[in-house]
Amino acid sequence: MLIPATVPPHKRDEFHNNYATLTKDTSKLLLFVADQKMQSLNEEFFGPDLPAGISDPEHIFKIASQSNVGGLSVHLGLMSRYGQQYSNINFVPKLDGKTNLTPTDPYSQQIWSVADAVDVARNGNMKLCGVGYTVYVGSEYEREMLTEAATTIKEAHAHGLVTILWMYPRGHKVKNPYDPNIIAGVAGLGATLGADFVKITEPDTGPHDLIYAVQAAGNTKVLVAGGPARSPEQMIKRVEAQLSYGTAGAVIGRNIFQHPLKEAITIANNLAETIYQHLDEDNFVGL
Amino acid sequence: MLIPATVPPHKRDEFHNNYATLTKDTSKLLLFVADQKMQSLNEEFFGPDLPAGISDPEHIFKIASQSNVGGLSVHLGLMSRYGQQYSNINFVPKLDGKTNLTPTDPYSQQIWSVADAVDVARNGNMKLCGVGYTVYVGSEYEREMLTEAATTIKEAHAHGLVTILWMYPRGHKVKNPYDPNIIAGVAGLGATLGADFVKITEPDTGPHDLIYAVQAAGNTKVLVAGGPARSPEQMIKRVEAQLSYGTAGAVIGRNIFQHPLKEAITIANNLAETIYQHLDEDNFVGL
Amino acid sequence: MLIPATVPPHKRDEFHNNYATLTKDTSKLLLFVADQKMQSLNEEFFGPDLPAGISDPEHIFKIASQSNVGGLSVHLGLMSRYGQQYSNINFVPKLDGKTNLTPTDPYSQQIWSVADAVDVARNGNMKLCGVGYTVYVGSEYEREMLTEAATTIKEAHAHGLVTILWMYPRGHKVKNPYDPNIIAGVAGLGATLGADFVKITEPDTGPHDLIYAVQAAGNTKVLVAGGPARSPEQMIKRVEAQLSYGTAGAVIGRNIFQHPLKEAITIANNLAETIYQHLDEDNFVGL
Amino acid sequence: MLIPATVPPHKRDEFHNNYATLTKDTSKLLLFVADQKMQSLNEEFFGPDLPAGISDPEHIFKIASQSNVGGLSVHLGLMSRYGQQYSNINFVPKLDGKTNLTPTDPYSQQIWSVADAVDVARNGNMKLCGVGYTVYVGSEYEREMLTEAATTIKEAHAHGLVTILWMYPRGHKVKNPYDPNIIAGVAGLGATLGADFVKITEPDTGPHDLIYAVQAAGNTKVLVAGGPARSPEQMIKRVEAQLSYGTAGAVIGRNIFQHPLKEAITIANNLAETIYQHLDEDNFVGL
Amino acid sequence: MLIPATVPPHKRDEFHNNYATLTKDTSKLLLFVADQKMQSLNEEFFGPDLPAGISDPEHIFKIASQSNVGGLSVHLGLMSRYGQQYSNINFVPKLDGKTNLTPTDPYSQQIWSVADAVDVARNGNMKLCGVGYTVYVGSEYEREMLTEAATTIKEAHAHGLVTILWMYPRGHKVKNPYDPNIIAGVAGLGATLGADFVKITEPDTGPHDLIYAVQAAGNTKVLVAGGPARSPEQMIKRVEAQLSYGTAGAVIGRNIFQHPLKEAITIANNLAETIYQHLDEDNFVGL
Repeated sequence: MLIPATVPPHKRDEFHNNYATLTKDTSKLLLFVADQKMQSLNEEFFGPDLPAGISDPEHIFKIASQSNVGGLSVHLGLMSRYGQQYSNINFVPKLDGKTNLTPTDPYSQQIWSVADAVDVARNGNMKLCGVGYTVYVGSEYEREMLTEAATTIKEAHAHGLVTILWMYPRGHKVKNPYDPNIIAGVAGLGATLGADFVKITEPDTGPHDLIYAVQAAGNTKVLVAGGPARSPEQMIKRVEAQLSYGTAGAVIGRNIFQHPLKEAITIANNLAETIYQHLDEDNFVGL
Repeated sequence: MLIPATVPPHKRDEFHNNYATLTKDTSKLLLFVADQKMQSLNEEFFGPDLPAGISDPEHIFKIASQSNVGGLSVHLGLMSRYGQQYSNINFVPKLDGKTNLTPTDPYSQQIWSVADAVDVARNGNMKLCGVGYTVYVGSEYEREMLTEAATTIKEAHAHGLVTILWMYPRGHKVKNPYDPNIIAGVAGLGATLGADFVKITEPDTGPHDLIYAVQAAGNTKVLVAGGPARSPEQMIKRVEAQLSYGTAGAVIGRNIFQHPLKEAITIANNLAETIYQHLDEDNFVGL
Repeated sequence: MLIPATVPPHKRDEFHNNYATLTKDTSKLLLFVADQKMQSLNEEFFGPDLPAGISDPEHIFKIASQSNVGGLSVHLGLMSRYGQQYSNINFVPKLDGKTNLTPTDPYSQQIWSVADAVDVARNGNMKLCGVGYTVYVGSEYEREMLTEAATTIKEAHAHGLVTILWMYPRGHKVKNPYDPNIIAGVAGLGATLGADFVKITEPDTGPHDLIYAVQAAGNTKVLVAGGPARSPEQMIKRVEAQLSYGTAGAVIGRNIFQHPLKEAITIANNLAETIYQHLDEDNFVGL
Repeated sequence: MLIPATVPPHKRDEFHNNYATLTKDTSKLLLFVADQKMQSLNEEFFGPDLPAGISDPEHIFKIASQSNVGGLSVHLGLMSRYGQQYSNINFVPKLDGKTNLTPTDPYSQQIWSVADAVDVARNGNMKLCGVGYTVYVGSEYEREMLTEAATTIKEAHAHGLVTILWMYPRGHKVKNPYDPNIIAGVAGLGATLGADFVKITEPDTGPHDLIYAVQAAGNTKVLVAGGPARSPEQMIKRVEAQLSYGTAGAVIGRNIFQHPLKEAITIANNLAETIYQHLDEDNFVGL
Repeated sequence: MLIPATVPPHKRDEFHNNYATLTKDTSKLLLFVADQKMQSLNEEFFGPDLPAGISDPEHIFKIASQSNVGGLSVHLGLMSRYGQQYSNINFVPKLDGKTNLTPTDPYSQQIWSVADAVDVARNGNMKLCGVGYTVYVGSEYEREMLTEAATTIKEAHAHGLVTILWMYPRGHKVKNPYDPNIIAGVAGLGATLGADFVKITEPDTGPHDLIYAVQAAGNTKVLVAGGPARSPEQMIKRVEAQLSYGTAGAVIGRNIFQHPLKEAITIANNLAETIYQHLDEDNFVGL
């Protein structure tokens, strides 16, 4: 495990422990997320095809608490209202946010500082392992996000916390955000910012082209977004294919929480098993 | 009563007391408001159909002081000029504001900090129980408001104060701000920001669809705006209907203050009785 | 006299003294102003119909020093260069400013802090009694001005200083800035910001409609702008009429300083006598 | 000599000395400037009609060091690289800057603080006597410049340094920046900001109309820009004419540095003699 | 070697050592750079004509560590993840950045402070010799960049670090960014900001016209960009020609890293030999 030089010496053990907790002592990670509650409001949580009751935030916390996911990423405000009741969860709060109603070029502004996350966790006796932040590369507000991302990494590492960047290519000059070379580029950009993990999307040319992103990211690990709703079996196959090209795991939301509690827990556990028991030596396809 | 993890341990008792004061030891709240004095200037306070003299700010403070409302929300500047003369009021100052003459996308900027409110209350021996802030979801300035809302909640909780967010969907992408799913969405957004209460409007499909907002908000309590002028009897019925779908009370301005003092006090007391004596077990309609 | 709760207890005496000095122990105020030297550059100080020499800043200070005006409001920079030579003046420096050459929506930015004013007065042994700030209600920059106004009031009161807000309705949505209801609205807005005095203009419907502004402002006192050039006799009549509807005095510039020194002093003294000797009980017309 | 009230008592002697150094114990000033090196890049320093080698920054410092000019104004960065080699120069570093390639309304942003200038001078054992800053009156960015100008004056005076404002009328509402009334207006504006000296341009109606600027500026002294290239003899005559209308000296760049070193020194010395030996009583034409 | 007055006395030795390390006790510098990994994402690191594997960041660090380049410039985030494994490199981290997908006028915002660079180097026991920053002269954001450049120089010198400014003329008013007079102008602008080195491009009139930039920059040293892909032999000739007109070296990226490791090391070493063994007395062509 790499401990980057943004982590001061007296925080190396803490960083090591947080990294080991999220990855269960592997180099892999399944991150369960529900930051859509801010981004798309009630859209992912209510509808004719969705089970009743999943919009209650407690649904998210129950799944995270009763399954083997590596960590949970929700916005810090929600964590402050539920986290102390679910103290076995490994938290990776999302510090930025916006809704999909904003009329401007995308900019998911940093709403909370790393110190805010540390305060909430300490007040509520929660396990804080890392933090998450989003960069829309190519947006009119790209520069604000690059700076907030780098600052978040610096402050998180100063607290011994793991950092995960959501890297999305967007804007007028981005013709295809699923182009493998663009995706590799934003993965590499995450590395130049100093991230431990980057969350990217699978290229539209298929999972094999994730190898370019994995290479460009170097010692920054690559996680892949869960994408549109799929059957649990499809999700497992998809994640297995991605892992075989060198990725380090997945960031999954709706494909877990859009199911009733028991089902959701089973799906999460199966994904966790797939990811955490993946052996690199058997499956990795080199460049 | 939930004490969120943004409240530090040494402020838990103070938060508990403030919450209990506003809710009169129930989980309900009637908040009397006159922040229209900034937002719409003299419009709600003067006109051919309105009683003379209600534009004198003293009218507001007299009603709040002589009735059983749970709290009063006016802008902090006005509170600094009248509050010490009406020391039995439970204050929830509004910290943001703008007028309806502003030509831009709505942004009700934070004008005072939580620390300013604490200073005013201490200087004038007033009872400060909480603070209020407005978010126009979907505005060009949404991100500034999300950040100011979260910061206000953090700082208010750090002082043991209760927080109430006014949540309004607005802007080009909001086709119908009274759509029940949008309203549920902004209620849930208030929860992701960590608010104790959110003030929303009743959906145009009727009070029963407030249950979606109540569910999405989880342990953040839902208050409903008083809306356009109505007869006192209509107001009572309306609030009763709303409460039966799980809301926690109402935020009422013109339907109280657009009456002469004695009438206004009676109306406020009847609303307070309706809200604070509402029994959840008798009336709540589950999902 | 009201001491607002933004004044801390240990500054109450100082605030009381400053208020009593400006109002000569009445509740009235004649404020002499020359902030036009920034706003309209040389326009008000030079021209074919104006006496020679009035553009020399010393003209302003001589009038203020040798007459009975309640206070003088010039920009702090000018005060720093002349104030120590005229140490009997009661200063109310203007802290904001812009010129009428600015191409944008009006925004008279805060240029100096209250602390700057305190420093200048202390260094030069001047009598600092209050500060002034301008709000263009309805401008694209309204929110910056609301915040700067509230901050200025907070900081001025923290130093025991009296605050005066210049309240001007402006912008695309303001059809008539002389509408009595708009004027009452901005007077009331000054109260929500916590001002001790607001300077407004007389409605185009006549001085009697100032009563709506007086009522909406509550315990914030109303001062009326001097307006276009008039004869000294007309000015006295105008101010008398205004006072009879409950206003607290006037803010006058060109109608004083556009006269040679001796004349200007006489005009100022006559206005001061009119304002400070006005008896409310004899003349006030209730609503 | 006036010591303004922005100078704290313990810095009055230092201010007095700096003022006396720049003015050689008169009330006049010849400021040699080369801030064009940022504003117009290589334009003023290279061309078919210009002597070779004048673009080497050392040319500027040699002239200043070997002539009798009152002070030298270059950007602080350049001063940090050459100043310690020319320690007999009286420095008045320019703290703001932009190039003429900027596409926006003019805004010459403050790049260095007064404290930065003090640090550089102390590290390099240089004589720091004052600082310079530019205001484009009428620009879209006027308000930023008014505030930075006032802040610079405040901070410079707090360090006992003399302040010089470059005052240029610009923008859509400025029909003629050489109109004598506009020029008088911006000179007076410099006084409202608290400047010790303002640099303005000569009106297109001739030097006699500088008397309006001199009057409007009051006890702020007026310096006149050198303007387009002229013969040394023309320059002397021009400056003599200006002085006879009450100005305090000149700010001259290209008319000095666009000559080979020896010539440049002679020109500078002749101008210095003209300015510093000018007797007000003999020549001043009153209003 | 010049030690500018922005370097405080107690940091002069450190500055001297850092300068001597980068220049190998000459006045020359070969800076190897890979800041393209942020600026152009994967474009320079992957393609049909490029060797496989060069997008792995380790490729960059291996070249820098195993060759005789004077220093390596990559973004600080990447340095924090690889630097401690390659502790013999002389680091000059790039503190600003943007991607070529940004839709606005160019502004490569400062992402990290000088203090951040110092922290990373200390945590990881790396050799930090200087920092780099980019200015797009003529951009709508020019003023932000001029200020950030000057601030970076001030802070870097305060830490005894050498500063290098990337100076690019850009924007609507820049008709030809390869015009020799414009290039000389931005080189001189770097001097007014106080830079130790400026990186410019070769004029389209040929290397001989670099003498104008060298002269305008004075005691700020001039480095030339490597430009488009060329053969190693062409690169050597090009750099030799540039040096003969007084430049101090080169800043080279793709012409080194777009080769397999061994080749890249050889190319770098040959360039280093050319630059560091260049004798000014033999080759310099005066103006």
